[in-house]
Amino acid sequence: MTLPLEKIQILLPDAVESSRKLAVQGEVASYIPELSRAPQHALGVCIMDRTGKQASAGDTELKFTLQSISKVFTLLLALLDRGEEAVFTKVGKEPTGDDFNSMLKLELVEPGIPFNPLINAGAIAISSLIEGKNPKEKSQRILDFFRKSAGNSSIDVEESVFRSEADSAHRNRSLAYFLKDNGVLTGDVEEILEVYFRHCSIEVTCSDVARMALLLACNGTDPLTGETLIPRRYVQIAKTFMVTCGMYNASGEFAIGVGLPAKSGVSGGILTMVPGTYGIGLVGPALNDKGNSVAGVHLLEQLSSKLDWSMF
Amino acid sequence: MTLPLEKIQILLPDAVESSRKLAVQGEVASYIPELSRAPQHALGVCIMDRTGKQASAGDTELKFTLQSISKVFTLLLALLDRGEEAVFTKVGKEPTGDDFNSMLKLELVEPGIPFNPLINAGAIAISSLIEGKNPKEKSQRILDFFRKSAGNSSIDVEESVFRSEADSAHRNRSLAYFLKDNGVLTGDVEEILEVYFRHCSIEVTCSDVARMALLLACNGTDPLTGETLIPRRYVQIAKTFMVTCGMYNASGEFAIGVGLPAKSGVSGGILTMVPGTYGIGLVGPALNDKGNSVAGVHLLEQLSSKLDWSMF
Amino acid sequence: MTLPLEKIQILLPDAVESSRKLAVQGEVASYIPELSRAPQHALGVCIMDRTGKQASAGDTELKFTLQSISKVFTLLLALLDRGEEAVFTKVGKEPTGDDFNSMLKLELVEPGIPFNPLINAGAIAISSLIEGKNPKEKSQRILDFFRKSAGNSSIDVEESVFRSEADSAHRNRSLAYFLKDNGVLTGDVEEILEVYFRHCSIEVTCSDVARMALLLACNGTDPLTGETLIPRRYVQIAKTFMVTCGMYNASGEFAIGVGLPAKSGVSGGILTMVPGTYGIGLVGPALNDKGNSVAGVHLLEQLSSKLDWSMF
Amino acid sequence: MTLPLEKIQILLPDAVESSRKLAVQGEVASYIPELSRAPQHALGVCIMDRTGKQASAGDTELKFTLQSISKVFTLLLALLDRGEEAVFTKVGKEPTGDDFNSMLKLELVEPGIPFNPLINAGAIAISSLIEGKNPKEKSQRILDFFRKSAGNSSIDVEESVFRSEADSAHRNRSLAYFLKDNGVLTGDVEEILEVYFRHCSIEVTCSDVARMALLLACNGTDPLTGETLIPRRYVQIAKTFMVTCGMYNASGEFAIGVGLPAKSGVSGGILTMVPGTYGIGLVGPALNDKGNSVAGVHLLEQLSSKLDWSMF
Repeated sequence: MTLPLEKIQILLPDAVESSRKLAVQGEVASYIPELSRAPQHALGVCIMDRTGKQASAGDTELKFTLQSISKVFTLLLALLDRGEEAVFTKVGKEPTGDDFNSMLKLELVEPGIPFNPLINAGAIAISSLIEGKNPKEKSQRILDFFRKSAGNSSIDVEESVFRSEADSAHRNRSLAYFLKDNGVLTGDVEEILEVYFRHCSIEVTCSDVARMALLLACNGTDPLTGETLIPRRYVQIAKTFMVTCGMYNASGEFAIGVGLPAKSGVSGGILTMVPGTYGIGLVGPALNDKGNSVAGVHLLEQLSSKLDWSMF
Repeated sequence: MTLPLEKIQILLPDAVESSRKLAVQGEVASYIPELSRAPQHALGVCIMDRTGKQASAGDTELKFTLQSISKVFTLLLALLDRGEEAVFTKVGKEPTGDDFNSMLKLELVEPGIPFNPLINAGAIAISSLIEGKNPKEKSQRILDFFRKSAGNSSIDVEESVFRSEADSAHRNRSLAYFLKDNGVLTGDVEEILEVYFRHCSIEVTCSDVARMALLLACNGTDPLTGETLIPRRYVQIAKTFMVTCGMYNASGEFAIGVGLPAKSGVSGGILTMVPGTYGIGLVGPALNDKGNSVAGVHLLEQLSSKLDWSMF
Repeated sequence: MTLPLEKIQILLPDAVESSRKLAVQGEVASYIPELSRAPQHALGVCIMDRTGKQASAGDTELKFTLQSISKVFTLLLALLDRGEEAVFTKVGKEPTGDDFNSMLKLELVEPGIPFNPLINAGAIAISSLIEGKNPKEKSQRILDFFRKSAGNSSIDVEESVFRSEADSAHRNRSLAYFLKDNGVLTGDVEEILEVYFRHCSIEVTCSDVARMALLLACNGTDPLTGETLIPRRYVQIAKTFMVTCGMYNASGEFAIGVGLPAKSGVSGGILTMVPGTYGIGLVGPALNDKGNSVAGVHLLEQLSSKLDWSMF
Repeated sequence: MTLPLEKIQILLPDAVESSRKLAVQGEVASYIPELSRAPQHALGVCIMDRTGKQASAGDTELKFTLQSISKVFTLLLALLDRGEEAVFTKVGKEPTGDDFNSMLKLELVEPGIPFNPLINAGAIAISSLIEGKNPKEKSQRILDFFRKSAGNSSIDVEESVFRSEADSAHRNRSLAYFLKDNGVLTGDVEEILEVYFRHCSIEVTCSDVARMALLLACNGTDPLTGETLIPRRYVQIAKTFMVTCGMYNASGEFAIGVGLPAKSGVSGGILTMVPGTYGIGLVGPALNDKGNSVAGVHLLEQLSSKLDWSMF
């Protein structure tokens, strides 16, 4: 149904250069200085097959923080730590149609739990479920899980991003205290937010993200080692959320235009995959008005259309 | 990846009887007398493969109106009549997280177009796009399209349901006039609603629905005749909406629990499919609090889990 | 506490000319052609004391339709027709903080009755309560009541405004059908709307409005004839609503800046009063972003401040 | 227009005993243990005239914390400290129709400032405006102002209530961080909340509240000392807010039923006044579903009706 990697490598550079032109229409996130310094016109992509071979093009060396992409893997770790039932008493399973940091439904819809684990409120609730006796231990467990998923023991938190996030993200604080008031969060809010801001600030490259995506594309069993890191059922849950809520308020549009499970972050990163076949990591810091990489979404639309990648 | 039809036929009766027990937890829709008379404990299912062979069990002879299931096929007809671009100036592509008849986002989110074609506001906008010089002609074109899709030239509008809907559905009138005020609807509101209520009132059996679903499972080409009724791209669009918004406010939960494109109706019907393989029609009039057949959803969860049907 | 009328007459022309300059900042309502033709820079005011003497200045000869000002008097007639208890099962007593034609609270807040009788939804519900065996009789009873309140048997509906309103006001239709669905309205929606649009289209001058206001300022007893047209309790209710909800979403600001019971209309009219002393009618078609006469509000702020009119 | 105090004293005990019976319908606030221990059936009232004479009945010795009643006087102090213009860049002037701790309009309505200073979000913004180089100094200035207004230098913060509020009020924290994110609050959120929780926890009796109310009834000039503590304009602002927003989401109903400027608190206290004549303090801890003293509101309705107290 799709081309082999060598053929993709041939067409990839042109596809990247053509999509890169759209970066001018987007804007780099600017709520903290560390993000605002990202190069607006950058675009890089890495596609990894089950043997670990990669096709890549563009700014693949660019480092970026995972931001909301991390929410997929903390969800998976929370499922591993607590099980499906415990997780879904704290977050729901539905798309919201509201902004990623909206509080409307927390106030309007009973019970006041976040609609899903990929909006900010839900991801904060998920962070509170990670096992560990203090924020440091929880953050270390998350980092270990991410390193293992990426097959890269050197990825780490970018401390200046973390500190800026922690200092500035008052809307997330507001969300967290609302959840605390609703009884969704137990424990100290600042400690939970520390865990949350830390995993958002883990720094990676496209290649790391492609490898993490490949693990999901292969239903939780690392195709390079044969090791099952995540049960298939949990991966299924994660991929479903990525289809229904992974691209903020453009998830429906992305499902129609690209048709692959995906998760984007405010740094311009996108993790996506061709199930069973490829893991894909991408970065393009200029964002469209829905918060997704404008050039990155365009590139995926082109590739999906040409290579017949849609699941639907 | 799934069993052949003969094997499914063997396990189907027990699965139906076991799920039927859940009907007691649900409630039959009662907003019009015609719907309220449906048998609460009924449950019937029909699964059709690409050769037209069927596995079935339970109350397969029960007739029911398509209700919201019809929205999938009027969307397809509108796409055929007007093309993708014209359709998506009138409706968006996103799930809402709100009730199927909610007006909140029409008032709160610019531009005031319905978020997607499967909520009531969106489906009314879609009805207004069907070609035809008057409501009668539009309704006839819809009926012809449904008959062709179902391979059954005898399906028809159930007139008493239509009249009751038309007389009672003031919330839909309210939605329609709001859309008129926002400039989404042009033309006479009552005429548009007549078209809408008529296609909701088309009466079918599980077998009809299974055949309609099979057409989508086969990407728009009828596997029995080889005729392409709908371009694959439009079927892709329809299936994507069925995953993200097909089961009202339980679409996310259904995607996780069943993992198939589906559309439910207030009559207790569900149209779903195993892409490439099976079309499925189901009816169970007792609804859960989200408006979906309580026994029907349970049956699909059991089958999907046992037969490994999830797309994700 | 305030000046005698002769002294007010002396300062009034300058006050009007100075406030008239603000009309340039506003916009004349344009949703129907009949309203859009109103002169943007017009400003007229008429202040009537208990003897019927008037101080006036500016464009006092300008005719305008009552629009939302009529809602105060249909509320009073509904109270006379049905009594307090019946009226307040259909509408509440609270300000909303939302737009005058908003539907949010109808959907979000139980029971789904309009928050108060001065927003559109509430005024439509009130129109449905007027006694009369058909729309014509109801409209005639309203007109008779308005004529008696204004002491002017020649005021009448401006038919071209009425027809334009009736043809174009789809948002009001949407509101009305929502209310019908919620069980607030009984009877035919179009007939109720006819009554509503008709009383909004009654044409007056500042002098008529001043006389109507004087009746309320004198607690329902016409000071010129000694006749009690409205019980004091109902006038009290009306005046209270005028303070809390009379000036759309700027009612709180007006209460702080002017401090008088008032009701504005989209034609630029304002009915207000100095309780016990003066009835005031005013017109200035250029509206601010809250829908109130920009020059008119400024004029009332100046007069209230200079003449110490605030009730608070 | 009303009876002299001696006559009121005669009828007051019966009125209190008759209203006290309604306490059974209400519920004492229970979100912190300190409030939940208040006696459900208590009802006390104190009415003070311009000479300082009092009529009183019921549980006048009961001590209670001001809670939301304090918001009126911190608004006044903020106006004294910063002036009208500075205050109204941080809070609006409109009733909301939403719950006192709602966040909906902060998210939905531009600019994201609280709609008025008497809802929680607005009162927190007001607390941030009090002059003082640290929370301690600000709190002391507030306490001094309240003592002077009450003519009672011994009123003080009830420390156990303050600590409980500060420990438990996560919804207020959520509000405050939202305001911080919107740029309404500058400075440390916890320090601002400390000031806020402290003034809510000032403990008083009915007599103290009556004296504070008398100051407002006399437009800011203490009738016992002749000293002007607050300019009339600021008192006018405060009284207007008390009419439009003083009784939570029952302000409109209270304006119609009682017709006096008033502010209630979750402790069951109500501050109200007959302008120019009486200051009134009242406590009845059992609250109705809008958060106002059920027996207290009933008592005021009876008195206002019998003594013709309504301003309208």
